[in-house]
Amino acid sequence: MTYQDTVRPLHWTESGLEVLDQRLLPDQISYEVFDSAAGVAEAIRSMRVRGAPAIGIAAAYGVALAAKSRYQAAPARWREGLEQDMTILAAARPTAVNLFWALERMKEAMARISGNPYPKLLSLARQIHADDLAANRSMGEMGADLLEGSSGVLTHCNTGSLATGGYGTALGVVRSAYRRGVTNIYAGETRPWLQGARLTAWELNQDRIHATLIADSAAAWLMKSGAVQWVIVGADRIAANGDAANKIGTYALAVLARQHGVRFMVVAPTSTIDWHTPTGEDITIEQRAPGELLPDCYQAHDSVITAWNPVFDVTPAHLIDAIVTERGVVLNPSLEMMQAICK
Amino acid sequence: MTYQDTVRPLHWTESGLEVLDQRLLPDQISYEVFDSAAGVAEAIRSMRVRGAPAIGIAAAYGVALAAKSRYQAAPARWREGLEQDMTILAAARPTAVNLFWALERMKEAMARISGNPYPKLLSLARQIHADDLAANRSMGEMGADLLEGSSGVLTHCNTGSLATGGYGTALGVVRSAYRRGVTNIYAGETRPWLQGARLTAWELNQDRIHATLIADSAAAWLMKSGAVQWVIVGADRIAANGDAANKIGTYALAVLARQHGVRFMVVAPTSTIDWHTPTGEDITIEQRAPGELLPDCYQAHDSVITAWNPVFDVTPAHLIDAIVTERGVVLNPSLEMMQAICK
Repeated sequence: MTYQDTVRPLHWTESGLEVLDQRLLPDQISYEVFDSAAGVAEAIRSMRVRGAPAIGIAAAYGVALAAKSRYQAAPARWREGLEQDMTILAAARPTAVNLFWALERMKEAMARISGNPYPKLLSLARQIHADDLAANRSMGEMGADLLEGSSGVLTHCNTGSLATGGYGTALGVVRSAYRRGVTNIYAGETRPWLQGARLTAWELNQDRIHATLIADSAAAWLMKSGAVQWVIVGADRIAANGDAANKIGTYALAVLARQHGVRFMVVAPTSTIDWHTPTGEDITIEQRAPGELLPDCYQAHDSVITAWNPVFDVTPAHLIDAIVTERGVVLNPSLEMMQAICK
Repeated sequence: MTYQDTVRPLHWTESGLEVLDQRLLPDQISYEVFDSAAGVAEAIRSMRVRGAPAIGIAAAYGVALAAKSRYQAAPARWREGLEQDMTILAAARPTAVNLFWALERMKEAMARISGNPYPKLLSLARQIHADDLAANRSMGEMGADLLEGSSGVLTHCNTGSLATGGYGTALGVVRSAYRRGVTNIYAGETRPWLQGARLTAWELNQDRIHATLIADSAAAWLMKSGAVQWVIVGADRIAANGDAANKIGTYALAVLARQHGVRFMVVAPTSTIDWHTPTGEDITIEQRAPGELLPDCYQAHDSVITAWNPVFDVTPAHLIDAIVTERGVVLNPSLEMMQAICK
């Protein structure tokens, strides 16, 4: 199969992990190499790397880099040092479930290692990276199967190659659907960070996938026009019952989709599912600085204008028609259905 | 009564119409004086003046200025020249109903004038200006009456002093409600032009009315939190049956409000009602340039990314709980109710 998918946010090289600085897109394409756990943690913290799956992959490479340097420095005591490095990596983005999932996998492997840990841990990091790409391609096809008969879809934020090991989650489904003839692709610009306008539009343009940007507030009017039959989004965390936390604006799209007879799909690897979180009500929503929304003049000490800036919202499972994971599709998600297919 | 309302977009002065350049707000507060119909038309066309009621008032002053100069130039033939000037004013913003309404009132007055038309037409323009302010204050109180028991409201775009002769339509209701203790005021930033972030936040800050800005896409999550009981918006054109065209995003808010048990109010003077338009389906929606949404790099000739950028959307009457006009409140609007109260 030919994939229109050329962008990679992370490349493993001889000298370390090469990271595309997503803060500078689409104006500037700039890669930097990070050769230590602290460097990779900084790349995550500063949001050069973003997207839950990509963060997990970067962290895995960070562990491998740390193992190399800890073993070189003290072959008999690399484990203690490496555990400190993993604490730094875990703290880089404390709400990304995939980050902890990747660190957990590295930790399990460490327990079974004797001798130099670097080759085995690097190999596992590369495996996590490759598995993510394979999972995305597989989810892309499963998701596209659900779109049979559709002509248009709307997506939100960036869930593409840039957010993952490649191909993307929700945007992977969009790629697969586009290849099969669903050619009316709409992307919400995704305020306040404009991930849709800056990142999704950029990677689709790189891959010559025609797409149309809209203001987030135009989504309802677009749905009313009949131009889209599905909304397709990713997830930052999925509760055990299928409630899904994702970029602010996702919940609005789910409510609007239901009212317009438009169907709603969440695409995420099972590493995004947090089985310890029973429902969406148990997910704490990160609030970001008002300055992301407020023009400078309202940040003066005598201003009476502030901003409410939640990063995520939670879409309840009953508004989700399908959750697509690498293990299969959960239709009309519930705790039972989630456990049956994803656990 | 004390009104917290200090901003005026239009001032009549000895030398002509002083116009606050709203394109530069909130960074720069700059007034310019226009002393001819062509100048006032340019002020409207360039969007220095915006907001349907303010455009109507500016046009009325434009007619007075034109009458002065036409009468000075040719006292016996001022009517012909003035009619040409009015054509220029009418073309400045062809979809603003209030513009035509104001020009029509000036034309009716012209028919009854003998001698120098300037004093009478200036007096009528000032009357239109003063009436608008009075109507807004009256609508503000009527709208606030409906909010009994509410603690929070959400508004969209800018419908304030800046958009009118003063006080505002929807934002006038917000002002009146704030004075009565509805102190949780939320404003959507209103992409792509950011009228909420640039203009509504600015004039509320000038008047020390505390307010909180949100990304447009956060409105549903805000409603779910229980923080607002009403959405209050203006209108650019209201069809005879109560369907209301307003800034893109308004329709989404109406759908979301209904789903969250939040009530929905449209506030507009009767000059906004277009009795010749039976329903919202007969309103043509202006599309603006994709460049308002697209980063520069997607405007290159080889880009496959475009944008869909409707300026307005239409909210059907069945999603509107109340239309507040200066003639009274229409609850659950329909053709019959609209005619009974507003005609």
